[in-house]
Amino acid sequence: MNRQALQALLEEVQAGRLTVEEALGRLKRLPFEDLGFAKVDLHRELRGGAPEAVFCPGKTPGQVVAILSRLAEHHANVMATRADEAVARAAAEAGLPHVYRSEARVLVVRPETGEPVGLIAVVAAGTADLPVAEEASVVAETLGNRVERVWDCGVAGIHRLLDSWDLLAEANVIVAVAGMEGALPSVVGGLVDRPVIAVPTSVGYGASLGGLAALLAMLNACAPGISVVNIDNGYGAGHQASLINHLVAKIR
Amino acid sequence: MNRQALQALLEEVQAGRLTVEEALGRLKRLPFEDLGFAKVDLHRELRGGAPEAVFCPGKTPGQVVAILSRLAEHHANVMATRADEAVARAAAEAGLPHVYRSEARVLVVRPETGEPVGLIAVVAAGTADLPVAEEASVVAETLGNRVERVWDCGVAGIHRLLDSWDLLAEANVIVAVAGMEGALPSVVGGLVDRPVIAVPTSVGYGASLGGLAALLAMLNACAPGISVVNIDNGYGAGHQASLINHLVAKIR
Amino acid sequence: MNRQALQALLEEVQAGRLTVEEALGRLKRLPFEDLGFAKVDLHRELRGGAPEAVFCPGKTPGQVVAILSRLAEHHANVMATRADEAVARAAAEAGLPHVYRSEARVLVVRPETGEPVGLIAVVAAGTADLPVAEEASVVAETLGNRVERVWDCGVAGIHRLLDSWDLLAEANVIVAVAGMEGALPSVVGGLVDRPVIAVPTSVGYGASLGGLAALLAMLNACAPGISVVNIDNGYGAGHQASLINHLVAKIR
Amino acid sequence: MNRQALQALLEEVQAGRLTVEEALGRLKRLPFEDLGFAKVDLHRELRGGAPEAVFCPGKTPGQVVAILSRLAEHHANVMATRADEAVARAAAEAGLPHVYRSEARVLVVRPETGEPVGLIAVVAAGTADLPVAEEASVVAETLGNRVERVWDCGVAGIHRLLDSWDLLAEANVIVAVAGMEGALPSVVGGLVDRPVIAVPTSVGYGASLGGLAALLAMLNACAPGISVVNIDNGYGAGHQASLINHLVAKIR
Amino acid sequence: MNRQALQALLEEVQAGRLTVEEALGRLKRLPFEDLGFAKVDLHRELRGGAPEAVFCPGKTPGQVVAILSRLAEHHANVMATRADEAVARAAAEAGLPHVYRSEARVLVVRPETGEPVGLIAVVAAGTADLPVAEEASVVAETLGNRVERVWDCGVAGIHRLLDSWDLLAEANVIVAVAGMEGALPSVVGGLVDRPVIAVPTSVGYGASLGGLAALLAMLNACAPGISVVNIDNGYGAGHQASLINHLVAKIR
Amino acid sequence: MNRQALQALLEEVQAGRLTVEEALGRLKRLPFEDLGFAKVDLHRELRGGAPEAVFCPGKTPGQVVAILSRLAEHHANVMATRADEAVARAAAEAGLPHVYRSEARVLVVRPETGEPVGLIAVVAAGTADLPVAEEASVVAETLGNRVERVWDCGVAGIHRLLDSWDLLAEANVIVAVAGMEGALPSVVGGLVDRPVIAVPTSVGYGASLGGLAALLAMLNACAPGISVVNIDNGYGAGHQASLINHLVAKIR
Amino acid sequence: MNRQALQALLEEVQAGRLTVEEALGRLKRLPFEDLGFAKVDLHRELRGGAPEAVFCPGKTPGQVVAILSRLAEHHANVMATRADEAVARAAAEAGLPHVYRSEARVLVVRPETGEPVGLIAVVAAGTADLPVAEEASVVAETLGNRVERVWDCGVAGIHRLLDSWDLLAEANVIVAVAGMEGALPSVVGGLVDRPVIAVPTSVGYGASLGGLAALLAMLNACAPGISVVNIDNGYGAGHQASLINHLVAKIR
Amino acid sequence: MNRQALQALLEEVQAGRLTVEEALGRLKRLPFEDLGFAKVDLHRELRGGAPEAVFCPGKTPGQVVAILSRLAEHHANVMATRADEAVARAAAEAGLPHVYRSEARVLVVRPETGEPVGLIAVVAAGTADLPVAEEASVVAETLGNRVERVWDCGVAGIHRLLDSWDLLAEANVIVAVAGMEGALPSVVGGLVDRPVIAVPTSVGYGASLGGLAALLAMLNACAPGISVVNIDNGYGAGHQASLINHLVAKIR
Repeated sequence: MNRQALQALLEEVQAGRLTVEEALGRLKRLPFEDLGFAKVDLHRELRGGAPEAVFCPGKTPGQVVAILSRLAEHHANVMATRADEAVARAAAEAGLPHVYRSEARVLVVRPETGEPVGLIAVVAAGTADLPVAEEASVVAETLGNRVERVWDCGVAGIHRLLDSWDLLAEANVIVAVAGMEGALPSVVGGLVDRPVIAVPTSVGYGASLGGLAALLAMLNACAPGISVVNIDNGYGAGHQASLINHLVAKIR
Repeated sequence: MNRQALQALLEEVQAGRLTVEEALGRLKRLPFEDLGFAKVDLHRELRGGAPEAVFCPGKTPGQVVAILSRLAEHHANVMATRADEAVARAAAEAGLPHVYRSEARVLVVRPETGEPVGLIAVVAAGTADLPVAEEASVVAETLGNRVERVWDCGVAGIHRLLDSWDLLAEANVIVAVAGMEGALPSVVGGLVDRPVIAVPTSVGYGASLGGLAALLAMLNACAPGISVVNIDNGYGAGHQASLINHLVAKIR
Repeated sequence: MNRQALQALLEEVQAGRLTVEEALGRLKRLPFEDLGFAKVDLHRELRGGAPEAVFCPGKTPGQVVAILSRLAEHHANVMATRADEAVARAAAEAGLPHVYRSEARVLVVRPETGEPVGLIAVVAAGTADLPVAEEASVVAETLGNRVERVWDCGVAGIHRLLDSWDLLAEANVIVAVAGMEGALPSVVGGLVDRPVIAVPTSVGYGASLGGLAALLAMLNACAPGISVVNIDNGYGAGHQASLINHLVAKIR
Repeated sequence: MNRQALQALLEEVQAGRLTVEEALGRLKRLPFEDLGFAKVDLHRELRGGAPEAVFCPGKTPGQVVAILSRLAEHHANVMATRADEAVARAAAEAGLPHVYRSEARVLVVRPETGEPVGLIAVVAAGTADLPVAEEASVVAETLGNRVERVWDCGVAGIHRLLDSWDLLAEANVIVAVAGMEGALPSVVGGLVDRPVIAVPTSVGYGASLGGLAALLAMLNACAPGISVVNIDNGYGAGHQASLINHLVAKIR
Repeated sequence: MNRQALQALLEEVQAGRLTVEEALGRLKRLPFEDLGFAKVDLHRELRGGAPEAVFCPGKTPGQVVAILSRLAEHHANVMATRADEAVARAAAEAGLPHVYRSEARVLVVRPETGEPVGLIAVVAAGTADLPVAEEASVVAETLGNRVERVWDCGVAGIHRLLDSWDLLAEANVIVAVAGMEGALPSVVGGLVDRPVIAVPTSVGYGASLGGLAALLAMLNACAPGISVVNIDNGYGAGHQASLINHLVAKIR
Repeated sequence: MNRQALQALLEEVQAGRLTVEEALGRLKRLPFEDLGFAKVDLHRELRGGAPEAVFCPGKTPGQVVAILSRLAEHHANVMATRADEAVARAAAEAGLPHVYRSEARVLVVRPETGEPVGLIAVVAAGTADLPVAEEASVVAETLGNRVERVWDCGVAGIHRLLDSWDLLAEANVIVAVAGMEGALPSVVGGLVDRPVIAVPTSVGYGASLGGLAALLAMLNACAPGISVVNIDNGYGAGHQASLINHLVAKIR
Repeated sequence: MNRQALQALLEEVQAGRLTVEEALGRLKRLPFEDLGFAKVDLHRELRGGAPEAVFCPGKTPGQVVAILSRLAEHHANVMATRADEAVARAAAEAGLPHVYRSEARVLVVRPETGEPVGLIAVVAAGTADLPVAEEASVVAETLGNRVERVWDCGVAGIHRLLDSWDLLAEANVIVAVAGMEGALPSVVGGLVDRPVIAVPTSVGYGASLGGLAALLAMLNACAPGISVVNIDNGYGAGHQASLINHLVAKIR
Repeated sequence: MNRQALQALLEEVQAGRLTVEEALGRLKRLPFEDLGFAKVDLHRELRGGAPEAVFCPGKTPGQVVAILSRLAEHHANVMATRADEAVARAAAEAGLPHVYRSEARVLVVRPETGEPVGLIAVVAAGTADLPVAEEASVVAETLGNRVERVWDCGVAGIHRLLDSWDLLAEANVIVAVAGMEGALPSVVGGLVDRPVIAVPTSVGYGASLGGLAALLAMLNACAPGISVVNIDNGYGAGHQASLINHLVAKIR
């Protein structure tokens, strides 16, 4: 609840149009709706720049669709992440208008596309990192950003990355996705003067420790301008990249 | 070495003003200078938006000052981080123009201040987190940003944070610094639609594991728009916040 | 074996009604019964405030029912936790009077409900935390406590939690359940002067490390009045909350 | 800020005794005071049952005394924990009325003792655990509780613990402090039907991992009714025990 | 190859009954037999007190039976551990004389029982620890030891353990098996002056970390006389207990 | 892109046979080919001594075969590692000439065998380590090396290893493969003056932590001349052994 | 309290020589003495085969001497472990008869030497492991065992260990001490049919993780007959070895 | 003891020049010498390509010099690693001919320099990595190799590394030293077809975990041809690089 709303409410009390009891009640009728198993946050878009996204694991397809349906009454481009085919089928059966981006495991309800703004470059080290990199890309696209993908640019073949130097330098923000030793963000961060959001993936085996090795490497990146999200968190990277890119784009 | 330089060099070869051997040699004369124990990277500013900063631990005051001196021939606002008093004294003895920000442990050589641009909010959870929060703030200020500090706003007294809601909403980017359970960025990220750079600190004991508990908490933040830097890495947060804030500010 | 029983036994020896050998034998005939694969502890209720609960994983439905049957000869409201449908079916086939609370994965044998006493508030951060939060709630209800549930109040939408401030302040003890960054107990502990039992859940992925991130965060909570149980241990939280709530309630 | 205060404020607006602007300002003048390096939380006692305690490590004696002085203007029995002799000297030099409990490393400013209520038993496994156990005891005593100490009762000599069975059964809540294998709370929790707050200590070497072994053991305690605080966190245990004991005591 | 064999060989060389080349060859024809995928160690019984046991996981039933068959040509009481029903069936189909102890997951080929010697007590904390405790027991029995089982004696009901005090004091060596907090060996070690071999099990969840919590607790046991084997390693405990018990028994 | 290629290109520019624009373009037309989901690195053989190998997990059989097909247009002896039967079938269906080494889980496309050079000894501790040891062996053989296998030589039967001393001393490089306590490389490294590449395997249970115990042991090997690859990374060991062995062999 | 004492007490009650109250009192007057900061366990020798040893770290020299003095009133050969020179001086100043074994950091009060029994072999891998190995040796000697030391026998020079094969085979029990990769117990355990107590040491750096690498290796030892004590726990190994050796020796 | 020595010994027995007892004795008089606290391994050079090096930490300067003196009677170029100034002074006082390389913390006794062979490139990422990189370099030089140093080539300034491409391609083996994110070996391994020995350093803070982050990254390197030694283990890398380089060089 922001300052303006609070001021308005106080003014209504002052003006006698609202009793103290009513004001107290209204202060509590905060902008969410209770589904019993979940409080749908309808005003997240106002507060956080985008409607709430639904993280599917641990929820039944039915629960996911119920939340999506409610959110879609108020918003376009509502996303469900880590959505498998069962979620997509449940959305179809419920008659929700949607697109399902299987490579990114993202379901978008009431998809609406406008003119994408700015530029986000999403760079991925290996083929196995693509599901996470696609999640970041699709999320950013859904949030209205222009996205360029640069795939399979691991540091063991540094020339493949250098080939995309111009593109990287043009982007407002770069998402760098890598598993195993997670060295890609360090190299990217050394090449350009743009904020880099590093996404470690769980790609690897043995001493990769489910992505912890890549995560630690990225946190220790010797190049400046890099920050890191959770392992496999393509959604978080795409969302933050969108926030940054929109800062620039809004102004233009 | 960027595209323009390469094109220029090739044109000189084409024009016969440069032999193949000369071109090869020049391609290797890359923009750094070798001090024996360190290669000073003089063009980092061009590539990465800021001159190289010197991380002091593990270097003697003499080594630090030698590197700073060389960098200061080319740049203003050269920074040394985690600098103790001995480094400041060595800089003074060497006659380097500088300011020493002891609370932030940052030494700035050839300090030059222009009109700060944009707005970065730096929020810190507890008193013990201030050295890291000050490092982020001083770095951002030195890089030309307007910075607002919001100190001692841990989540155990949530009202102290809500008091600064307006300021947070006004910033282009927020740096959130916390040790112990590291919950501050989650709460901040839920309040505003701005990118949040989370900085875990090593403040705590026992199960804080030297800051790992806060680091893990921040990586698992349930609010979107958050990314994380290394434990106690105020410099990295300040630098990335500056990159983002300048994206906005350049345009204005 | 408590002091009173020991005194009585010694008095019988003194009075000559019991030989030394008989006394020794009786001292060893401790209040448990041996089923071969398990010693059923019939006096746990006297010692620990509640009959023994059966933790189902690693036991066959048949073993669970055998233990439950024996306990139910002596006690009402015997609980099996982490009980799946197969356990419920086995209980039904064995003719045990019971209710099965599937959302909490708790089976209660010989359910008896009296007037619940006091007030325990169970707060959960997200929808995925509900199985654990329900386990805590059902256990506390079965042990005779009044329980209020506050679901989906993660710190990323702090207003949802503030909405329940009055309820929290009214409770004798609060159980706070959260996965991911586990920040909920810190915020709750800062709002009220009641003991908070924090329950980390394994909800999350990557750097959540199966709930370790939430566990560490809760152990480092900067608010006072908080203690922590094992990951996903709704039973333990419900049980301890009941012990605390009954301290108050007994007196009234 | 609680409901009553909000209601009062709204009523003043309604009555015209307060303009909207004044009300907004007052809503922000939250009950803390800014010392520059710390926001002193003056109303913590109202919200959390006790005035804020000052954790000394990482603060200078001067900073500690400054915060204590300010808190002591409003409260008696203000505590500084992990306070070394230097803090005690600084308090003396500043003329603060205080007692310093060196064995517990706790400094109490404006000490006032009333009639202690209820009963908290603090049990410690070994001699080396005493500083932590004393911290819990002194904190609980300062908060107005009757405390009984049971020292050196490690599980390797189980008869020493059984000797205090009656005392344990009489307490409203038990604090169990142990390092090394951390088995004490499990045994205590099996003996009595009282809530047990387990405090792992960093006592040990090698595979004790600075107290992590004891912490993990306590989190896995097979007896019900146990919850755990951070390693060496005597303050937290004493504080929570006080909250529980006062629930009982207030009523009597 | 021991001293006696070496001396005999040298004497044969000295006596001219063996050429140098033959001696070299014989020195290399060490007492194992090569099956291609495994070198069967036929003399382990001489060197290590028992024929080689076969650890089944990661081997096909066919491979297990092939190794067992070869060992059984030379030895009785050859054991396969962690053997599932498929291994037992394969042994039956191959016509190997055997018994399968399903509760212990141990298959014994060419079982021969003599008069068991000495006394080993195997103590287990909970019902879920029985597979490991049975493995230790069956291995020790197969190696010719008298074994007494004491099941379901976790420290949360310390009276159940005290009930078996006499038996523990009579044993030459005690195997103590526990999961979760792993406190049993500490308590046992405090009761008797016998070597205790502690076996942590993977029983537990969350912060039990697959048995690591119990393992660490046991390594930190405050009672003397305790040493520890790998998580779930009933075989190792049974084997070492047999070595110790036979030291005593041989002499009698 | 190596020096020779760069020199040639510059000479073409100098000679006027190539415009600056063409040269720039060619500098970017780096030696890989884009399949959409992967950039096939055709020149890895020139840079790294062998064509790129395909790591199968996380790729569909179809994707694997597509990459293999493309690589096989340019190279013989293209390898897919961790290849299961489904990959082998897909290769067969696609008509790729290949051999599938199931014990090593390696598929070799366009197999060509020349005269193997030098000598690599691959030593394995236990039967369960064979899949990894075979991977190392088959990779080294495919890369043109003579390989000798020494299986089932764990340090618990040190005589089995000593039996192969001569062979080890003859090899140019030794690959030592072991799980559990991972002691084999230390013993091997103490016996011979040859570089030893240590491969920890995930063989073990409990405190083996999925191979971490063996990995740590090998990194701490007290014998000199040892370096370590990732857990189960037979491919990496075989590849590096080949690089070393070819250094010797090329010269002969 | 053992069965005999209990029987005697009950008989006194039966005979009327003891009132019930007196019996209850005596049941509680358990065999320890309270020094305020420690309960000295005077009967540990009866229960555990040796008087209590005092672990010095975390205790002042004065506290150590106070406990030792009290124990020495009842026992000879009272030990203080990890005792530095300050403890030895305090013992001398207090007039305690003692020997100080500086290499083992063990102080023995009221030293009495009888005829040592049996044979314990203590094997150490490297020079840096000697303090721990000496602690084990001196403890075992003080407890009345014959001890043979075999120093500097790391597995990187396996011939040094083989040289002592006869001695190892003669011992009743072997203590094997090693840091770094901790492979020594595996090799020793493969050579002889005697129980091996493995002691990991904190010798090493980097990935030795303060001895964890050696600890894990020993827990995963592939040879049977091995169990493990805590890192650097020479006392525990010497004590358990003594328990085992005395089993044999008592009988002879 | 190698095959030749064994054959000779057997022939002496056969010839009657040696009795069986003498032969047994000689078999045990293995080539080391016992100093009491250390067995000096005089034949390590024969077996392992270099005389034993002395690792100084945990040894007194006196102990180090005693071992060095004994080794120097038989060998030139005896090394002590991690040697501080005190060791150098002790060597000087003992009159040992030596050089002390302070930057590498290596002391060489009886230094002898011949014509260095082959080429080893040692590449270091940052200035703070130099002590480790120098250790590797000095060790390799002392062992008779030509060494080229390439300092301050971290991946954040990839052009600095590319500048040395020719040198890297010319070397027989490359040692790559890096702390923080440890990405250097991956990039180097992608550039050349030479074996790369990766050395993680403890340079870094926070999530570098004392070098574990770099270690894990290097173990997960996506480029082939890389193996890894312990954190800060410059000696091990220099030694193994020498073994590899000498394989090549011996032949030339």
